[in-house]
Amino acid sequence: METHAQRPPVIETLATGDEVVNGDVVDSNSAHVCRLLMRLGLPTTRHQALPDDRALLLDGLRAIGERADLCVASGGLGPTEDDLTADIVGELLGVPVDIDETAVARMKERFARLGYRFSENNRRSARVPHGADVMQNEVGTAPAFSVRIGRCQFFFLPGVPQEFRFFVDAFVLPWAEKRWPVGNTAFAQLKTLGWGESHLAEKFQDFPSRFPAVKLGYRAHSPEVWLKLTATADSREEARRVLGPAIDEAMCRVGDSVFGRDDEELPELTHRKLLASGRKLVLAESCTGGLLAHLLTANPGSSEYFVGGAVTYSNALKESVLGVPADLLASKGAVSAEVARAMAEGALAHLGGDLAVAITGIAGPGGGTAEKPVGLVYLALARRDTVGGITTQVAEQRYRDSRERVQKAAAWSALDLLRKGV
Amino acid sequence: METHAQRPPVIETLATGDEVVNGDVVDSNSAHVCRLLMRLGLPTTRHQALPDDRALLLDGLRAIGERADLCVASGGLGPTEDDLTADIVGELLGVPVDIDETAVARMKERFARLGYRFSENNRRSARVPHGADVMQNEVGTAPAFSVRIGRCQFFFLPGVPQEFRFFVDAFVLPWAEKRWPVGNTAFAQLKTLGWGESHLAEKFQDFPSRFPAVKLGYRAHSPEVWLKLTATADSREEARRVLGPAIDEAMCRVGDSVFGRDDEELPELTHRKLLASGRKLVLAESCTGGLLAHLLTANPGSSEYFVGGAVTYSNALKESVLGVPADLLASKGAVSAEVARAMAEGALAHLGGDLAVAITGIAGPGGGTAEKPVGLVYLALARRDTVGGITTQVAEQRYRDSRERVQKAAAWSALDLLRKGV
Repeated sequence: METHAQRPPVIETLATGDEVVNGDVVDSNSAHVCRLLMRLGLPTTRHQALPDDRALLLDGLRAIGERADLCVASGGLGPTEDDLTADIVGELLGVPVDIDETAVARMKERFARLGYRFSENNRRSARVPHGADVMQNEVGTAPAFSVRIGRCQFFFLPGVPQEFRFFVDAFVLPWAEKRWPVGNTAFAQLKTLGWGESHLAEKFQDFPSRFPAVKLGYRAHSPEVWLKLTATADSREEARRVLGPAIDEAMCRVGDSVFGRDDEELPELTHRKLLASGRKLVLAESCTGGLLAHLLTANPGSSEYFVGGAVTYSNALKESVLGVPADLLASKGAVSAEVARAMAEGALAHLGGDLAVAITGIAGPGGGTAEKPVGLVYLALARRDTVGGITTQVAEQRYRDSRERVQKAAAWSALDLLRKGV
Repeated sequence: METHAQRPPVIETLATGDEVVNGDVVDSNSAHVCRLLMRLGLPTTRHQALPDDRALLLDGLRAIGERADLCVASGGLGPTEDDLTADIVGELLGVPVDIDETAVARMKERFARLGYRFSENNRRSARVPHGADVMQNEVGTAPAFSVRIGRCQFFFLPGVPQEFRFFVDAFVLPWAEKRWPVGNTAFAQLKTLGWGESHLAEKFQDFPSRFPAVKLGYRAHSPEVWLKLTATADSREEARRVLGPAIDEAMCRVGDSVFGRDDEELPELTHRKLLASGRKLVLAESCTGGLLAHLLTANPGSSEYFVGGAVTYSNALKESVLGVPADLLASKGAVSAEVARAMAEGALAHLGGDLAVAITGIAGPGGGTAEKPVGLVYLALARRDTVGGITTQVAEQRYRDSRERVQKAAAWSALDLLRKGV
């Protein structure tokens, strides 16, 4: 922080609403904006949540105005009596509260389009303190507004996460980047699967000496491990220049175990690769119980490649739906490399498609033995080639974790197999 | 609040750690403890999150000590250099920091049991300010501690949610209930499915006049609506007495659409009913894409009743795996009451089991028509009776929502059908 040309800015968040303070709603908005500000080299100093209480809010806003440079606030902008934000800000600044007629006109248009009735009460959502910078809402109803209180620039945004995120991207981040152009860091995050934190750290032992201006961090996000690179220099531009080759070198060291960057997510990445591949997918799940099918079909457009799947919990279904031989189940056991292969190849033969993934394992907490402990999982990927032949690869995984995490890790491994093998 | 015998207590939470303030981790601990305190009639006034920064933490703790009566703090209790809590509290109180040898002994035992090596560094986790009330950790490593700063009783708990929750249940809630026995409210929550908020509100129009001491609230938690009843009286005992008949009357009005109370969750309730029924279940999912199978198999022990399922996205699989007649698919369309029935009955015939649920619908955003819009879903429940006959019920649902919410609502309807029909 010492290399900032000026004193580093003080940044805070404020979530308002009884439902937040009483615990009915978990405030994820603050984490969202802070993560994005961090990438501009702007760390946050404090999060707060306060109830819909005039005295507490007046006091809270005044205190933030005395100590912070930027505050991103959420909530209290709707049409109901509980929605106090505009009134309290008006009171604090000694200005009346206006109705923003541009926002009202947009609201009426939006309601007409959706077939809803516009009531006079809805005008309340367009209340903004006189003189505030009004920001129009392109994904919802209430406009947001920005004012200066004390030394601090406040952005008052709706609490609905989708709307909050719209205003952060469209207004808050551009404002912060322009206001503090001397932000001196650049940031990248590589998401990896399959390597432990300590294994990753070993691969990067000499990294600090090669890239002294780049700080490395690791964050376990089971089953993923995220590698964070933060470059510090005299300016944000320079930091970005320093970061480039460090990312290239890091990618080279972790190779195929990096599946994505920054906010990319594995299920969606795999979905996009499948969409682009033109191939048809079938699934045969046992211990994941439908989770893999769910993760893919949660994405719009998955019907383009997803034919279907079988969740074969019982051995009887492994035989009848997938054609796994009874004697193979008897001799090798349902949780075995051989049965995983037979499930994947059987899925291709009996369900169709030209790409099949099978998962069989012991999710726990019961069902484990000394030889086949809880957390043992076999995955198979079978591919039909253009002349009708079938190539199958099988992988064994061992996880030491709860049922939920074993199921997730197994589904993640399958997504990763697909991502690499499609 | 005015009926409290004394001034109502001021309660705050404090989450510490760079990872919280930077947005890598969303603080769900504060919401958890506040929800439970609320049920004792004890609302919270403020949540805060602060980074691992000595000056900010000293200042923050001092300020809370001046204005609050209870503060539940989390984080900063581990073995690393970042874990500052014990030192800062010691500094604030002017006491040295001790190693709690009871905690060390428990830690060594725990590590030996799990086969981990105990290093001298782990002793750091057992650091507590001299004179603090130490609380031993039965689900993890670091002990928690409680001290008084200014007028406020602080509970410093680990940030790991599972450990945080253990200490809240075992120490914080009992302490608060004893400290403020005059808490004058009692609380119950009925979780409903299938009725909108406005329909619910209509059924309860005369409720306030019949139970004037009971406040009603509604909370949409798509696809569920929660009905909250809060009774206020001169004492907590009296409030509980008032609440009893109000709950009975409410249950009577909402009848079968109440599936659970307080923290009960529909997937787990349905799972428990299926476990108890001794019946064997098969599933035929289309638009939910495996979500229903996943929700049930997430529960340990589901293999007791879950035979398996088919995710039949394509019409070809509806024919080949479930035996749905091709001419029925052609004449009625895949999204129809007739096909839902044929899928459920086909699942019984081809997959086995004595209970089958089928779901077919249009999750969107694409694929809708004027006649069959996005959000149209058919569900069927087929039951084999003891003499081999099959009874099938079919339901039509229409949702106006995103893909994610249509899939969730459809899976929830299926769980509810099972809960009622098992």
